[in-house]
Amino acid sequence: MRLTAELALAHRLADAAGDAIRPHFRTGLDAERKGDASPVTIADRAAEEAMRRILTAEVPQDGVHGEEFGTSEGRSGRQWVLDPIDGTASFLVGRATFGTLIALLVKGFPVLGIIDQPIQRERWVGVTGQPTTLNGVAVRTRPCRELSGATIATTGPHYFTADEGDTFMALAQKTDHRRMIMGGDCYNYGLLAAGHLDLVCEAGLKLHDFAALVPVVEGAGGLMCDWNGEPLHGGSAGHVLALGDPARLEDVLEAMGGGDGHDH
Amino acid sequence: MRLTAELALAHRLADAAGDAIRPHFRTGLDAERKGDASPVTIADRAAEEAMRRILTAEVPQDGVHGEEFGTSEGRSGRQWVLDPIDGTASFLVGRATFGTLIALLVKGFPVLGIIDQPIQRERWVGVTGQPTTLNGVAVRTRPCRELSGATIATTGPHYFTADEGDTFMALAQKTDHRRMIMGGDCYNYGLLAAGHLDLVCEAGLKLHDFAALVPVVEGAGGLMCDWNGEPLHGGSAGHVLALGDPARLEDVLEAMGGGDGHDH
Repeated sequence: MRLTAELALAHRLADAAGDAIRPHFRTGLDAERKGDASPVTIADRAAEEAMRRILTAEVPQDGVHGEEFGTSEGRSGRQWVLDPIDGTASFLVGRATFGTLIALLVKGFPVLGIIDQPIQRERWVGVTGQPTTLNGVAVRTRPCRELSGATIATTGPHYFTADEGDTFMALAQKTDHRRMIMGGDCYNYGLLAAGHLDLVCEAGLKLHDFAALVPVVEGAGGLMCDWNGEPLHGGSAGHVLALGDPARLEDVLEAMGGGDGHDH
Repeated sequence: MRLTAELALAHRLADAAGDAIRPHFRTGLDAERKGDASPVTIADRAAEEAMRRILTAEVPQDGVHGEEFGTSEGRSGRQWVLDPIDGTASFLVGRATFGTLIALLVKGFPVLGIIDQPIQRERWVGVTGQPTTLNGVAVRTRPCRELSGATIATTGPHYFTADEGDTFMALAQKTDHRRMIMGGDCYNYGLLAAGHLDLVCEAGLKLHDFAALVPVVEGAGGLMCDWNGEPLHGGSAGHVLALGDPARLEDVLEAMGGGDGHDH
C-alpha cells in the first residue's frame, strides 16, 4: 500500500487544521464545557470543520470520525479519524505540546497517521510499511537495554483511576523515575518515535486519541499495545502503552503485574 | 532602580546561554549523574560557563551563584543567580519547555529576573517596579475570581514527599482540576505571568530555581510566596506558590490547610 494520494490529502488536512488553530493560540479564549468537562475551544471546532470540508469535497465515499462532530459512515471501507486538538489543557495554557491527530483506517486498521504541532511546526508522519518522518526526515526510536534506564512519560496522574494509577506507578518505579515526564499528550509519542524517550503509558484514550499514533510509533521501530500487550482496537479500555524498544515488552508487562485484567 | 545596564547585561547572558544550549537540543546526549541524580548535560555546563565568562569579564566585583559551578562571593552586595537549564528532564526528552534562569539579587533580594526558552525563542523579563515583558511586549497575569475556576500547574507529583503531595492535592482539588497542568518547570511561571494559568505550586525548589521567577511574576501583577504565604528566601524549604491573582491568597492557604508548618 503506497497511499501516496492519501498522504498528500492528510498533509492538506493538517495544514488546514493548523491554519484554523494558530490564530486562537494564547488569545485567552473562554473554553466551553462538554458533558465530560473536557475543555472545548473555538479552535478545536474550527479545525475539525476545516478538515471535514476537505474530506467531504474530495473523498465523499470515505467515513469520518471526529472528536467534535461524531461519525459519518462511508461506503469505501476507509475511515478518517480526527482529533483537532489533542491536549486541549496544554493548548488552553499556551503550551505548544498539543497536537492535531489525523488517522486513516482501512477496514478498522490504522494505516496512516499524522501528529502535527502547528505552533512549533513539527509534523510526524507514519504510513504502514514506511519509515516514520518528522518534518520529512526519517526518525527512529532508540534502543532501551534495561527497563531501569527507561524514561517514561504520561500526561498526568489525574487521568488514572486509583487502580490504574497503582498499575502505572508499579511500572514507573521500575524505570528511571527521577526523569519521569508529565504532561504532553500526543506529543510524547512523537518524542518517543524520534528516539528521545522510551515509554508512554496512559489510560482513558479513545480511538481518536490513539489511532494516529500507531503508524507513527510503529513506523519508527516502536510498538503500541494495550496494557496486556494486545493490539489496540476501538474496544480497548483506552489502556495504551507505547514502547520505543519492543524488546522491553515482557519487562513492562511483568512490572505492571501481568496486565490489568480489564482489557478483555 | 532603573537597572538599565544590568538588564542589557542579563540579555547578553541569556543570548550566550541560548547559543550554548541550542546545538545540544535533541542530539541524544548521554546525561551524567550528580549526587542527587538530577540529569546534567554538556549543554547545562556549557551554558553556565558562557554566562560566567561574561560576568567575570564585565562585573568581577559581583558574586555569582550557579547551579553547576557553585558560588563565588562578590564585594558589591550584588549576586547573579544562574540556572542554565531549569527543566533538564524536559530538555533531555526534546521538549522545549525548559528554560534558562538568570536573576540579579541586591542584598539578597531578586530585583531582576529572566526566564528564557531558547528553542521557542521566548524571553520573559522582570525588573522590580517595571512591567514584565515577553519578547519585549508587556504581559499581565489574569484575574481569578474563584479558586474553583483556577488552572493549576506543577512539574510533577514525583517531586513531592508524601506529605507535600497531600497538601498539593488538597489545593488542586479545590481548583478546576480537570485542567491541571503537569510538567513545565519554570515555563509554567512564564505562562502564569502572561495570563494563561492561575496557580503554580511546587516543592523542593532551590534559590537558583525560583529567584528569577519572582520579578517576572510580580512585575506581571502576580504574587510569589512560600506555602505559608511568607516571602520566599534562600532558607525557605523550597515550597513555592505563584498566584496570578493575589486576591486568592487566603483561599489558597486555607485549601492547603493553613500552611505546612515546615517553613519556619
